[in-house]
Amino acid sequence: MSYAELTEATGRVNDLLNAGSVLSWDARTMMPKGGAESRSKQLATLAVAARDLLCSDEMKHALDGAAAEVAGKPDDSAEARIVAQVREAIDYHERIPPELLRRKTELGSSAHEVWAEAREQADFSIFAPALTTMVDINREMAQAIGYETHPYDALMYRFEPGTTEAGLKTLFARLREGMIPLVRAIADAEKPRAEFLFRDFPADAQMVFALQMAERIGYDTHRGRLDTTVHPFEVSFTRNDVRITTRVNERYMPMSLFGALHEAGHAMYEQGVDPAYTRTPLATDLISLYAVGGVSFGAHESQSRLWENHVGRSRAFWKNHMDDIRAAYPGKLDDVDAEEFYRAVNRSEPSFVRVEADELTYDFHVMVRCELEAKMVDGSLNVAELPEAWNATMKDYLGVDVPDDGKQGVLQDVHWSSGQIGTFCNYTVGNIMAAQLFETATIESPDIQTALDAADYTPLRTWLTNHVAQHGRRFSRDELLEKATGRPLDPEPYLAHLTKKYSDIYALA
Amino acid sequence: MSYAELTEATGRVNDLLNAGSVLSWDARTMMPKGGAESRSKQLATLAVAARDLLCSDEMKHALDGAAAEVAGKPDDSAEARIVAQVREAIDYHERIPPELLRRKTELGSSAHEVWAEAREQADFSIFAPALTTMVDINREMAQAIGYETHPYDALMYRFEPGTTEAGLKTLFARLREGMIPLVRAIADAEKPRAEFLFRDFPADAQMVFALQMAERIGYDTHRGRLDTTVHPFEVSFTRNDVRITTRVNERYMPMSLFGALHEAGHAMYEQGVDPAYTRTPLATDLISLYAVGGVSFGAHESQSRLWENHVGRSRAFWKNHMDDIRAAYPGKLDDVDAEEFYRAVNRSEPSFVRVEADELTYDFHVMVRCELEAKMVDGSLNVAELPEAWNATMKDYLGVDVPDDGKQGVLQDVHWSSGQIGTFCNYTVGNIMAAQLFETATIESPDIQTALDAADYTPLRTWLTNHVAQHGRRFSRDELLEKATGRPLDPEPYLAHLTKKYSDIYALA
Repeated sequence: MSYAELTEATGRVNDLLNAGSVLSWDARTMMPKGGAESRSKQLATLAVAARDLLCSDEMKHALDGAAAEVAGKPDDSAEARIVAQVREAIDYHERIPPELLRRKTELGSSAHEVWAEAREQADFSIFAPALTTMVDINREMAQAIGYETHPYDALMYRFEPGTTEAGLKTLFARLREGMIPLVRAIADAEKPRAEFLFRDFPADAQMVFALQMAERIGYDTHRGRLDTTVHPFEVSFTRNDVRITTRVNERYMPMSLFGALHEAGHAMYEQGVDPAYTRTPLATDLISLYAVGGVSFGAHESQSRLWENHVGRSRAFWKNHMDDIRAAYPGKLDDVDAEEFYRAVNRSEPSFVRVEADELTYDFHVMVRCELEAKMVDGSLNVAELPEAWNATMKDYLGVDVPDDGKQGVLQDVHWSSGQIGTFCNYTVGNIMAAQLFETATIESPDIQTALDAADYTPLRTWLTNHVAQHGRRFSRDELLEKATGRPLDPEPYLAHLTKKYSDIYALA
Repeated sequence: MSYAELTEATGRVNDLLNAGSVLSWDARTMMPKGGAESRSKQLATLAVAARDLLCSDEMKHALDGAAAEVAGKPDDSAEARIVAQVREAIDYHERIPPELLRRKTELGSSAHEVWAEAREQADFSIFAPALTTMVDINREMAQAIGYETHPYDALMYRFEPGTTEAGLKTLFARLREGMIPLVRAIADAEKPRAEFLFRDFPADAQMVFALQMAERIGYDTHRGRLDTTVHPFEVSFTRNDVRITTRVNERYMPMSLFGALHEAGHAMYEQGVDPAYTRTPLATDLISLYAVGGVSFGAHESQSRLWENHVGRSRAFWKNHMDDIRAAYPGKLDDVDAEEFYRAVNRSEPSFVRVEADELTYDFHVMVRCELEAKMVDGSLNVAELPEAWNATMKDYLGVDVPDDGKQGVLQDVHWSSGQIGTFCNYTVGNIMAAQLFETATIESPDIQTALDAADYTPLRTWLTNHVAQHGRRFSRDELLEKATGRPLDPEPYLAHLTKKYSDIYALA
């Protein structure tokens, strides 16, 4: 009975975390303004209740019994993995002193306002003291969590287990080697026509078309819904209720469409997790205390990037759906052909703001953040020197002169204000993993590309469900990649994809 | 520090219960169909977590310390009441054996489908076995909870503390004495014109007007929002986020409007609770395990009924807002004057269905249910005899021949399917209390009626906030009434109100 007791108890942890996710979704989509203060208390209570239940004597007792019960199972069986993951999570959380966690949480909520003010004023000195404390707290966290080589490794663990500062250095160097020449060459090339993307597209019609395309690639709205928010996101409350949002700009239509395709990619990961894993640790991130079926933040991003970039921004997609988008916006795109549309939504240009960056330049924004975070965490960069280092690195990688320290500069992201350090690498891991999976899928099963050419997304979705989504959190990200592609994370397919795509669009030598 | 520890711990109980309320609201308004199964598990876990925290050793320890700490405070101080209410709630929950609660919960979820099937087929025999078990379980609950005179008293306790079967008998007899002659006289009187209410009113316009009127009487949408559901309801997640819903029938416009006014009345109760009570037991029903600031279900209903019936269905209201409703539905009501509209929305006619009953006949539906519930609970009525008893009582009170045992008869309400017995009295308590409060308010402060005549709802709202809402759950319903009106629940103002209103509308002798 002990294994059953364990999954019953972890099921309740999952319920509490999912309840928190519902409250977060509601806060971002539906909640009236007045509800904010009470809501943050409710969220805090749910998080504490989940953590306390995870680390309770009841759980430990069930865990010991379950461990004995499943001792004969293979190491990578669902049962053995559940036992191992619960044990590891308890161990992880018990290494973090409650008073340290409390200091982090408290600073996280007070620092947000300070950051918002500093960002508004474009004055880094307003935020510097809070960030200094936040970096110190994160260094303490790293010590508590433990690491072999670099304290940044400990901080990345909850977002992208196994990723190291040293590994990122090598990876980023290889990416720059392949990508900087492309960026430079594009700067001198002729720009594709794109003025039609900035026409007036009614918000309602954008939402209808965004949902239509999300459903077209396989997002199941019987178990989901699409809403609008300032920042698009996906969140699940088990695989049976996986919601997405997108943002709408009436003067820049691609935002709502690609936002929806991106989040639908995330959503299909969650919707595709083995139903048998529902409410179990294989659909619960017990380290980050977040109810999610995806195995890492980077693995999750691989699915959103794959559907957004490898499918939604492909030439075949627009050959197939140019008529659909013309029908969605009568009279607005009559002077645009599929090839022009394809090129327009793939144009690339260095910019200041990460969330607005294109497929080719996005990773440079990630590199800047990861490298500077690692240096702050190991003490080789003082917080006071951060803006200068930021601007210098942006100039170095993208050739741009950052105009201010606010929305276009070092203060643009919300992450640091809440104490999150170590999360940015996921985006680049996602880009690389997406290309690696897509390459293998289309080489291994040529009918996948044939189907994509005919606007049939089922074979690709099925391949991704079989090789990624269904496994939930049973296998690590690199185990998944090994099983699916025969090797761990490898940047070469990504570089090949970018080189081929941009050389073609910009007619590079 | 112990009193502070107590309110910290009860604050977390409140958070968990509010989280459950958010999940319930979401399930009824936003959730995709696929989410239902996971959601019910999440709700169950939250309810258990709240109950376990309430009855935890930590809570009892804090309670003992707090009791010593506030020993010198007056009995009706907030602190003394909090200590007393927490102690009473722990005692209440610990009297109910966990296995009995489990049986009730399990039957509650399985019986729902059986009831729905029986209702659809209009075949009571399908539901009879489940209802028999449910009645037995409720009898066991009554024994566990304890009572002085009648087991029904124990079941009503969590909904309307202090209400007894004997008290209801007296109350209902007096109501019938005053109301049956009105019902009979109206049957022979000329019916007011009402055909214009059934015209085609677009759903969007109905929602706009419903919200406009809800805000007009004082519902604060900075701390609330209006949505549509099949059954209208109000739910709060602290006073800072109080949401309402209404239902829209494009061929019967009053439904959305009076639904919104009714729920706005509930909402203003919650929005008016003293902010100092937020997250405390004075804004948490620890007996019913529901995060609510209103002191009883009946007291809550008094506020919704007061705003719906005494304000929204008053002659003055339509004198003032006839132009508004004409503007909301251009061209639809040009041939209707304020007096005609007032009479139309106050017409009365015996009917079969409680939720569609008018102000005068509603209480008869309540009486039927309470009387039959009490008899089933004390064993003087067998479940098998229920349909016959139902139909006979409906004939006796309202003179109608119930056509079937389904949607128009004994199976119409969902309550029994979930095991709820003892809740129906609240509606009549609410009607009586509404009239009693409204009479006192307008006698005590004549400027309240003057203001209402000028479409100024602030003086009435202020009076109700001062005499009812602000106190949250600090005073019992009858304490509130004693303080506000000088006496406990008294049906005479209600009977006087009905007699005056209907004698006038129907020109009765």
